[in-house]
Amino acid sequence: MQGKIALEEHFAIPETLQDSAGFVPGAYWDELQHRLLDIQDTRLRQMDAHGIELMILSLNAPAVQAITDRKRAIEVARRANDVLAEECAKRPDRFRAFAALPLQDPEAAAQELARCVKDLGFVGALVNGFSQDATQGDGKDLLYYDLPQYRPFWAEVAALDVPFYLHPRNPLPQDSRIYDGHPWLMGPTWAFAQETAVHALRLIGSGLFDEHPSLQIVLGHMGEGIPYMLWRIDHRNAWVKLPPKHPAKRKFVEYFAQNFHITTSGNFRTQTLIDAILELGSERVMFSTDWPFENVDHAADWFDATSISEADRLKIGRTNAMRLFKLAL
Amino acid sequence: MQGKIALEEHFAIPETLQDSAGFVPGAYWDELQHRLLDIQDTRLRQMDAHGIELMILSLNAPAVQAITDRKRAIEVARRANDVLAEECAKRPDRFRAFAALPLQDPEAAAQELARCVKDLGFVGALVNGFSQDATQGDGKDLLYYDLPQYRPFWAEVAALDVPFYLHPRNPLPQDSRIYDGHPWLMGPTWAFAQETAVHALRLIGSGLFDEHPSLQIVLGHMGEGIPYMLWRIDHRNAWVKLPPKHPAKRKFVEYFAQNFHITTSGNFRTQTLIDAILELGSERVMFSTDWPFENVDHAADWFDATSISEADRLKIGRTNAMRLFKLAL
Amino acid sequence: MQGKIALEEHFAIPETLQDSAGFVPGAYWDELQHRLLDIQDTRLRQMDAHGIELMILSLNAPAVQAITDRKRAIEVARRANDVLAEECAKRPDRFRAFAALPLQDPEAAAQELARCVKDLGFVGALVNGFSQDATQGDGKDLLYYDLPQYRPFWAEVAALDVPFYLHPRNPLPQDSRIYDGHPWLMGPTWAFAQETAVHALRLIGSGLFDEHPSLQIVLGHMGEGIPYMLWRIDHRNAWVKLPPKHPAKRKFVEYFAQNFHITTSGNFRTQTLIDAILELGSERVMFSTDWPFENVDHAADWFDATSISEADRLKIGRTNAMRLFKLAL
Amino acid sequence: MQGKIALEEHFAIPETLQDSAGFVPGAYWDELQHRLLDIQDTRLRQMDAHGIELMILSLNAPAVQAITDRKRAIEVARRANDVLAEECAKRPDRFRAFAALPLQDPEAAAQELARCVKDLGFVGALVNGFSQDATQGDGKDLLYYDLPQYRPFWAEVAALDVPFYLHPRNPLPQDSRIYDGHPWLMGPTWAFAQETAVHALRLIGSGLFDEHPSLQIVLGHMGEGIPYMLWRIDHRNAWVKLPPKHPAKRKFVEYFAQNFHITTSGNFRTQTLIDAILELGSERVMFSTDWPFENVDHAADWFDATSISEADRLKIGRTNAMRLFKLAL
Ligand SMILES: [Zn+2]
Ligand SMILES: [Zn+2]
Ligand SMILES: [Zn+2]
Ligand SMILES: [Zn+2]
Repeated sequence: MQGKIALEEHFAIPETLQDSAGFVPGAYWDELQHRLLDIQDTRLRQMDAHGIELMILSLNAPAVQAITDRKRAIEVARRANDVLAEECAKRPDRFRAFAALPLQDPEAAAQELARCVKDLGFVGALVNGFSQDATQGDGKDLLYYDLPQYRPFWAEVAALDVPFYLHPRNPLPQDSRIYDGHPWLMGPTWAFAQETAVHALRLIGSGLFDEHPSLQIVLGHMGEGIPYMLWRIDHRNAWVKLPPKHPAKRKFVEYFAQNFHITTSGNFRTQTLIDAILELGSERVMFSTDWPFENVDHAADWFDATSISEADRLKIGRTNAMRLFKLAL
Repeated sequence: MQGKIALEEHFAIPETLQDSAGFVPGAYWDELQHRLLDIQDTRLRQMDAHGIELMILSLNAPAVQAITDRKRAIEVARRANDVLAEECAKRPDRFRAFAALPLQDPEAAAQELARCVKDLGFVGALVNGFSQDATQGDGKDLLYYDLPQYRPFWAEVAALDVPFYLHPRNPLPQDSRIYDGHPWLMGPTWAFAQETAVHALRLIGSGLFDEHPSLQIVLGHMGEGIPYMLWRIDHRNAWVKLPPKHPAKRKFVEYFAQNFHITTSGNFRTQTLIDAILELGSERVMFSTDWPFENVDHAADWFDATSISEADRLKIGRTNAMRLFKLAL
Repeated sequence: MQGKIALEEHFAIPETLQDSAGFVPGAYWDELQHRLLDIQDTRLRQMDAHGIELMILSLNAPAVQAITDRKRAIEVARRANDVLAEECAKRPDRFRAFAALPLQDPEAAAQELARCVKDLGFVGALVNGFSQDATQGDGKDLLYYDLPQYRPFWAEVAALDVPFYLHPRNPLPQDSRIYDGHPWLMGPTWAFAQETAVHALRLIGSGLFDEHPSLQIVLGHMGEGIPYMLWRIDHRNAWVKLPPKHPAKRKFVEYFAQNFHITTSGNFRTQTLIDAILELGSERVMFSTDWPFENVDHAADWFDATSISEADRLKIGRTNAMRLFKLAL
Repeated sequence: MQGKIALEEHFAIPETLQDSAGFVPGAYWDELQHRLLDIQDTRLRQMDAHGIELMILSLNAPAVQAITDRKRAIEVARRANDVLAEECAKRPDRFRAFAALPLQDPEAAAQELARCVKDLGFVGALVNGFSQDATQGDGKDLLYYDLPQYRPFWAEVAALDVPFYLHPRNPLPQDSRIYDGHPWLMGPTWAFAQETAVHALRLIGSGLFDEHPSLQIVLGHMGEGIPYMLWRIDHRNAWVKLPPKHPAKRKFVEYFAQNFHITTSGNFRTQTLIDAILELGSERVMFSTDWPFENVDHAADWFDATSISEADRLKIGRTNAMRLFKLAL
């Protein structure tokens, strides 16, 4: 399929490059570095070769979220966003941008998002899970964005009317005992999905979307496992007629239908895609690759042939993203 | 459908009853208590009313696994198994038994399993996740069964040739920071699945099934979310051609095809069932309700009408369990 | 689901009533007559009881198509349309109308459609398969609408910009030898689908949609079997690289994506619906019951619970029809 | 996948070769002729290249069924079966045989089947739809096998305990008015499926499988469209509580579950396969290509990658056929 739009596509700046070092064996680090630092060369050739018209670019992970020095987090986010704006300006027909945000400081994050959207033409934000801040719990507190201090930030996201991509990161070592002795379970194999799915469920349970019903959250990797378990979240112990003990007032499936989108990044599986379509509908699924951690050809060759209707291929591959991000292509 | 077999169906003895108290609001505790302590009355009427010929019964959770006094864990397991054997003997046409096992002490667990199978006619074991032992980490160590000290236990399971049902429990408070402020995420809503899925993946990654290829593990709740993410576990970062850093030699999908079964307990969702069938095949899925935490009518009414072939309904509802547990009905 | 729109819903006038007599055993004819002649009473109560806000009504079958006297066909169509207009005017919030058309006479049919759309506010036409005309083959010729004489008619349909529902009828006795000795295969059991599917394929193959790419055809009964076989139509003998011997230039799947819609009428099967969605996408499927030949409760109870996303339920149950028929509700 | 078994795989003898001439454009006739007459050369190389261990071979169509001279039909069937037996004997590890049968003469057909099974080791029969006999209707009568004179033949099939593959043929010209002007609808594009599906439904409706419940019928092309419409066959007009007017006593879905199998021949579509599995279960679906009318690579490349579980791939690709045809491989 030509004209695809991909939206979980990462780059790095020198300050954040090392954050990606642990995700591939040493022998692959040279290649991964090159892929992360490149924008206009290999990346564009990959896009050309596999029918991707547009990538919405975002910083690698955990990057800003893991910088416990609040001031430096703000600086690195700003620098990354400026670099990204420059790169996108070179090929406005091929690239758009997600803002990196220093959510250690909700007010600074809101300001940076406003700057990126209004001044730099960014189409939304991509944030790598919880933030760490040296002034809170010595950087060991898990700053999830359902916490009360983030409500003004979300008000700004709603006001700017841009989607927010909730991207994975790993849990902190002290919260990872379940993976002890099995480091291979970290990252994309499993821990990413648990970390991000729970973060998304916290946002819903907190009542955030009752307060800001227009917010649009994007989850990668086919929804980080949630669609398969979504019915159970809403219906476990259904003979108990008391409402669940969280502020959210509706069923989680309704928030998914109103406030969430998922992408195919890193989960190129037809069975999983069919399940997602049967749970969420094809208008809430979008193509993505997760470059450079996943190969563009792996994503695109699969997607171009996967067993869905051509109508859905067009929506998932292109028009859903055009509508959500108000892209004029 | 008449003649269904259900295999995640719990009871309690007085010593373990309180373990279930936190899983329903106070107003429902009387009802839940009654359901847990009853075997021959309400339970049988529910089974009759909804076409369940046979239940394989198991102790509630976490029960034995959370008794940090090793000696008492052994005693409680033994008592629960003796009670269960008596109850099953009253209606051998309607009940079979899974052994509770004091896995704080692998050798005692192996002996108790052997006793249950050989002397009491039990058809397998059901264990509630990791065990806690006061002599190891003050009961705060997470004793997952991929740890090396459990290999002789697994050798005995293999020798006895009975399935092992890996049932959920909650993480310990110190390992639950991700759920802070959101206790509604504990238990069946989410934490159960994460805890159990990771435990299952650890078993696989440890190479257990390379050493004992005949072991058969059962997971509830449609596989605790794994089928939807199984491809990603095997294929993330597929451009990296080095093998993953765990002893297991094959793809996880192959272990699932050879060593795992899933049940429908508490996840009565047609879309999820279809996905499971398309990932694992219908011979590795079995009906269950998760009584008394879930209602028998919710499970059975859904299953009897769910959109699968009648051939698969018969397998999933009955004959798969007959084959796996060698039931002569 | 409340607010459903249903679009294969029939009524009769005295002149056409007997056409439906053969479709139910004698003991059911009284009930069927009542259902066919009623508009404002039983029908509305059924709609109220099962969440149908709007029915688009159409004459029973074969009715006008089987009247071999061309003049009488024109008269009966006109009378049926006038009656229908009156009935719809009584409850414009609950009923819309499809025109019956005397396609024995393509020009008269075009005029009648124009009258119905422009003067009476009808939203399209529903035609019961091929027409018979005494002046052509003694009424035994099969007047399928891919024949060259119908191109001006289609130009008018395109100009009026209204959908055309191609409804089943039975083959003539001389063309029914395959069903000899098995009259139970006639009608909805099987012959309807064959007759209508081939008619639809003839329209496509004739190049009609290359000439009038804006035409929108609706097929009932989940597409009369075509979606399941659509790939084979386009790909049989794929090693033969010569184009098929018909004027149509593109793959049939593309015409289905551009020019066809299907409804659920009389085919209340989740597996079939899922297949249709995976072939055509959910925007080309619409709810219908086929009242009074099928029960509204059978259609609605199934549809309201069928295993699709709520987003797709809303589209299929309501908004697809609103968009296609430009309904302001 | 290695080790596949394929069971709709044709060859021709000089006497039947011309029957296949009309199915490809003239430019492809040389190639098709070669493919049909070859057994040990191109065919085996194709099988080797695409993981097919065993083909069950059958004569091309309509061949014997269209020979209106009863005596010659008997001779040609016998000759074809003898040739096939010789060819299979050269590579018993790679080929098995279906008998061609002169069903113009039910008794001769029964004898020939018995000879083929008992003397030549054939594993069943493949018959190309209805037969024509000069002594009955001048060869224009449609001899479908639900007719009463075929009951002794079916008794012999049941006694021999071998499957019967009901393969397509085209309708006679006088029964093809629906296709007038559209010859491209004949053959595999559409007419094959209608002809064969109705034949299968006639067999069921006639009560054949009530009389001989052990009979096993195989349909190609994913069941010739029936699975998608099977619910409607059983449930149209469900408010009418009188039984359908045919001798068969049970629902058609039950006969499909007990007496029918389908193959993937010529219908290499994942969506269609998933629907078939959800209707019939994976144990009643078998891999086939329809060589030489379809390419082995088209069939095998699709099947090896289609989105089903590996457990079902093994069944559909191999073990279902081993069980049904009692193959010791
Ligand atoms: Zn990513
Ligand atoms: Zn349980
Ligand atoms: Zn109708
Ligand atoms: Zn064939």
